[in-house]
Amino acid sequence: MSAKRVLIIYAHQEPRSFNGAVKDEAVRTLKENGYDVEVSDLYAMQFDATSSIRQFKGKPENPDHYDFQRELRHANKEGTLPKDVVIELEKLASADLLILQFPMYWMNLPAILKGWLDRCLTEKFCFDTARGMWFDHGPFTAKKAMLSFTTGGTASYFSKRGVFGDMDVLLWPIHNTLRVCGFQILPPHILYAPNDVSLPERQKMLSDWSTRLCTVFAEKPLDFVHIDNFDV
Amino acid sequence: MSAKRVLIIYAHQEPRSFNGAVKDEAVRTLKENGYDVEVSDLYAMQFDATSSIRQFKGKPENPDHYDFQRELRHANKEGTLPKDVVIELEKLASADLLILQFPMYWMNLPAILKGWLDRCLTEKFCFDTARGMWFDHGPFTAKKAMLSFTTGGTASYFSKRGVFGDMDVLLWPIHNTLRVCGFQILPPHILYAPNDVSLPERQKMLSDWSTRLCTVFAEKPLDFVHIDNFDV
Ligand SMILES: Cc1cc2nc3c(=O)[nH]c(=O)nc-3n(C[C@H](O)[C@H](O)[C@H](O)COP(=O)(O)OP(=O)(O)OC[C@H]3O[C@@H](n4cnc5c(N)ncnc54)[C@H](O)[C@@H]3O)c2cc1C
Ligand SMILES: Cc1cc2nc3c(=O)[nH]c(=O)nc-3n(C[C@H](O)[C@H](O)[C@H](O)COP(=O)(O)OP(=O)(O)OC[C@H]3O[C@@H](n4cnc5c(N)ncnc54)[C@H](O)[C@@H]3O)c2cc1C
Ligand SMILES: [Zn+2]
Ligand SMILES: [Zn+2]
Repeated sequence: MSAKRVLIIYAHQEPRSFNGAVKDEAVRTLKENGYDVEVSDLYAMQFDATSSIRQFKGKPENPDHYDFQRELRHANKEGTLPKDVVIELEKLASADLLILQFPMYWMNLPAILKGWLDRCLTEKFCFDTARGMWFDHGPFTAKKAMLSFTTGGTASYFSKRGVFGDMDVLLWPIHNTLRVCGFQILPPHILYAPNDVSLPERQKMLSDWSTRLCTVFAEKPLDFVHIDNFDV
Repeated sequence: MSAKRVLIIYAHQEPRSFNGAVKDEAVRTLKENGYDVEVSDLYAMQFDATSSIRQFKGKPENPDHYDFQRELRHANKEGTLPKDVVIELEKLASADLLILQFPMYWMNLPAILKGWLDRCLTEKFCFDTARGMWFDHGPFTAKKAMLSFTTGGTASYFSKRGVFGDMDVLLWPIHNTLRVCGFQILPPHILYAPNDVSLPERQKMLSDWSTRLCTVFAEKPLDFVHIDNFDV
């Protein structure tokens, strides 16, 4: 059996940021444990975050009416998907675990990371509604995914009575997006307010993260209602 | 008293799309009713959606560690905010109503629109936590905001028992982001699955939208828990 592969989609501009350190710690630990690790460093790649028409080099399916989803599907069929998307899809195909590593922006993903989802989670490859292949029957049911992120606010801001609202609620649209593709969702790894704590506390955060990753593939995914229990 | 001003942030690539029609209908109706209307057509503007380091032309506050929020704050103080952000902030300053017009992408905003929020909702101008100016005490408490969007899925996909989950839950992080700046949130305008309905039904959607907009400034905003009821 070949080594498990981990794909980290990393969205921070600054290598010396705490997110950078968290990413480096993951790469180090996972390699030490014998896993293959791949990192997509979105800012360094100058990843195109927008679903603009410019990305498609092939002939559009409908030159008179740009429909991003339809053009993605068409380009997929014709083999003319944008080069950068193809590269990410290849990484995704061989990944056993996907980690999204980011600083929270406006209770959500930074735009560049949202753009990665918008552009890379293509029909047929990552989900196929027409064939009922989504959620628990999605193409990626053998893969796991985890959100790993930092915040500016402390945990109390994200409690059920916090000003930002319950963290589970904020993460639901992102988790459910990954669910559409079939991913098993591991509990998120949340590092609250690294800027507000002491250096030793931050170092503790990094070593706890490393400890968690050593047994990450043994973790039980979160429970979600199985797709067969829905009407659609 | 001068005419009320409406700012529409429009995020669709195709003028002939349904979102394009919904935006055009809003512009027409609002102008007919004597309002001033401004549209930011993000794809046409090739709006930079990412919080990359490239946007800052001035001297960074910390050249050794890029912190986007700090650099925004610094550029704001120095008067070196990116040109495109300054233009959006001027539009925001004079707007009485902000409408975000978009097709739903992954139960959320398209990345280009998320990037508009990430880059334009700058400290001091749109919120000022240090001075307690956020939520009900935010700078924009006299302004209203509304999400107006289309979906691929029908309403049942977004019911409390739908596969995408309750629409109110999906919209919460976006609504709460606007709340941070003080905006009064008007009920969202949701056009479900325009692709699945007949032409007359879509035309009815457009005329209902027009009808709503005629009295939009008389609408009662949604209720949220007042910030003074929170601990932080
Ligand atoms: C547009 C925008 C929107 C935002 N919205 C929200 C929001 O809705 N909610 C919210 O809570 N926050 C929000 N924030 C704040 C943001 O989430 C935090 O600023 C971010 O998560 C902090 O992570 P970082 O990696 O940038 O930290 P950094 O500031 O880079 O790092 C934190 C500290 O860790 C130190 N460090 C770096 N490497 C190491 C190491 N190896 N060991 C120990 N220490 C190290 C750094 O030197 C620094 O002192 C927003 C920020 C922006 C820009
Ligand atoms: C990356 C991505 C992620 C997505 N994620 C989701 C998701 O999570 N949930 C979900 O529900 N959907 C999702 N979708 C689907 C998306 O939300 C819909 O495709 C979109 O909302 C449809 O709006 P449109 O303006 O693009 O429609 P269009 O396809 O442009 O228009 C619909 C119809 O209206 C017609 N029309 C145009 N102008 C007029 C007019 N003046 N009068 C009458 N008819 C007119 C058009 O010709 C067309 O027939 C996703 C799509 C993408 C690309
Ligand atoms: Zn089943
Ligand atoms: Zn008060």
